[in-house]
Amino acid sequence: MSAVAILGAGIMASALTVPLTRNGHRVHLVGTHLDTEIIDAIQRTGVHPHLGIALPEGVTAFQLEQAREAFAGAEVAISGVNSFGVTWAGQQLSALLRPGMRVLSITKGMDADGAGDLRILPEVLMEQVGAGLAGQVTWSAIVGPSIAGEVAVEHDTAVVFTGTDQESLDALAHMFRTDAYHVWTSTDFLGHEIGAATKNVYAFAAGFMEGLLDAAGEGTGQYRRYNYGAAVFAQGTREMLRFIELLGGDRETTTGLAGVGDLFVTSMGGRNVRAGRYVGSGVPFSEVRDQHMKGVTLEGVAAIEVIGAAIEKLTEREVIEAEEFPLLRHLYGIIAHDEPLEMPFRDFFGGMR
Amino acid sequence: MSAVAILGAGIMASALTVPLTRNGHRVHLVGTHLDTEIIDAIQRTGVHPHLGIALPEGVTAFQLEQAREAFAGAEVAISGVNSFGVTWAGQQLSALLRPGMRVLSITKGMDADGAGDLRILPEVLMEQVGAGLAGQVTWSAIVGPSIAGEVAVEHDTAVVFTGTDQESLDALAHMFRTDAYHVWTSTDFLGHEIGAATKNVYAFAAGFMEGLLDAAGEGTGQYRRYNYGAAVFAQGTREMLRFIELLGGDRETTTGLAGVGDLFVTSMGGRNVRAGRYVGSGVPFSEVRDQHMKGVTLEGVAAIEVIGAAIEKLTEREVIEAEEFPLLRHLYGIIAHDEPLEMPFRDFFGGMR
Repeated sequence: MSAVAILGAGIMASALTVPLTRNGHRVHLVGTHLDTEIIDAIQRTGVHPHLGIALPEGVTAFQLEQAREAFAGAEVAISGVNSFGVTWAGQQLSALLRPGMRVLSITKGMDADGAGDLRILPEVLMEQVGAGLAGQVTWSAIVGPSIAGEVAVEHDTAVVFTGTDQESLDALAHMFRTDAYHVWTSTDFLGHEIGAATKNVYAFAAGFMEGLLDAAGEGTGQYRRYNYGAAVFAQGTREMLRFIELLGGDRETTTGLAGVGDLFVTSMGGRNVRAGRYVGSGVPFSEVRDQHMKGVTLEGVAAIEVIGAAIEKLTEREVIEAEEFPLLRHLYGIIAHDEPLEMPFRDFFGGMR
Repeated sequence: MSAVAILGAGIMASALTVPLTRNGHRVHLVGTHLDTEIIDAIQRTGVHPHLGIALPEGVTAFQLEQAREAFAGAEVAISGVNSFGVTWAGQQLSALLRPGMRVLSITKGMDADGAGDLRILPEVLMEQVGAGLAGQVTWSAIVGPSIAGEVAVEHDTAVVFTGTDQESLDALAHMFRTDAYHVWTSTDFLGHEIGAATKNVYAFAAGFMEGLLDAAGEGTGQYRRYNYGAAVFAQGTREMLRFIELLGGDRETTTGLAGVGDLFVTSMGGRNVRAGRYVGSGVPFSEVRDQHMKGVTLEGVAAIEVIGAAIEKLTEREVIEAEEFPLLRHLYGIIAHDEPLEMPFRDFFGGMR
């Protein structure tokens, strides 16, 4: 049995304590500076206030100030922050990791430089940790369709552990696998991370169909807009495939758990879908951001900002064609320039012909 | 403006009169022997009783006995029956088609011979029509995510017209395209038909997630089973891809409208999902068929029977490996042998490793 330290006490990070402790591992859950109340609650009641369930025995909650103590003796470190905290998490890990540890990240998103070149978030973590130490630990990530609460209550969940070191992937997968938590491994790190990041982008668009019904007063009507949603889903899949191809991942990853699987689950609901629904109903995005969903973390919207801006630069540099990514470009126009929703169907699938 | 004759007055065939008449075409809608009451109702009230909407001006409804009259002067013939009626429809068309007509089929499914060799349904139509006449008309089909009622009320719908004759595809697409009905064309007839047939197969499995919640008394619980559904969706996509590859279609079709797009829309509800939900809740399939859904047309179940039996024969012939299609094989066990649902997650994605 191993000791695992998790940095970040959000719902996904905390849900992962369930399969780990089911297998007898000891877990130290360390809150970030934003998680003080969560850790307080767990320490007082045992219940994670956002998950609404008691964390298993075998989990000990620590405030950030006790992070060193929590990480002492751990063989595995999980970076459990969301995409907004990844640089911060890397800085923390630079002081907490020891050579030989296995690092597992659950953060989904991408980062871009000024020229529009995109990179996956584990690279940001590694950069912050620094080349010396980063080279003495292994880096892996969990991707695939995984609603935290379902993991926490042990509903079947199928995910991929991805990274470059197969031995680490095997060891980590072995630590997590239960009758309900099904784990595959893949060394297509790039393809899997791109799938995980871009599905959030297209999940925002999955909210439009309900919003359009709201706008038309058909919120409870007999005929929905699933045909619309399906067209967006297929175009989103095609754009994801092109992204993976463009950045050098394995095209096959698109049709797997971190591709269409994750796109499916993310389209079923959540904050990004909710934001998209407002836009579908006719609300300018700036109003969604500043009023209706003020203060709500929207990783999908953040991903659209990063990737959409990068796409513009890559087009200027003629790395990609102006006709590519029509859906993503429109989403970026909505987010960045408050453009009204007008789905560019005719530009989908390489243009209507 | 053209004249179009449609054989079959079900909801999908009838919904297609909306884009056609929007473009000024004249449509003759001919009921099958099972549609007598539908045609009666349309003739009396103008309203299609199952769609619940008035069909547009420009549509004339005919009973089957008037089929010859209805087809006289038509340049386009639509085979609008479901997969159970395709042989019958071919026999009818053999007497109704004239050289030079364009035939467009909306039937989704597959046919298999005794050796397990699968073929697409337009081939069944052609066979019934006979080689002489069949060679003097063009054959195309509509595939892609298309809930009939949404087409009828002009909610955005994106489909593919597929066939071997590009000129016919272009002409047909031009006849149907409206601001709401978006049409692409493709000559990957095989790949698109396989996608359209197999999505019904996997839609049955999409019902399991709700059924499992029903069984656990969690029908209204906070935590759903979307992770489960997403894993099934991804595995279904992979099996669809393998089917298309196996039969010689274009792999790319999997990630388009007739692949993941149609799989998405079909997973959102309908009869096959409802049947799957019963199975998910623990009801043996024979009881679903003979009691809960007695008399209900289940095209997905029929497709599982046809394709599942074919897969067994193809495995015996060593055309495919025993490890392939674990999801489809389990669905076939449920349908054909009343096996209880026990999702073979470990066999997904080429086996857990």
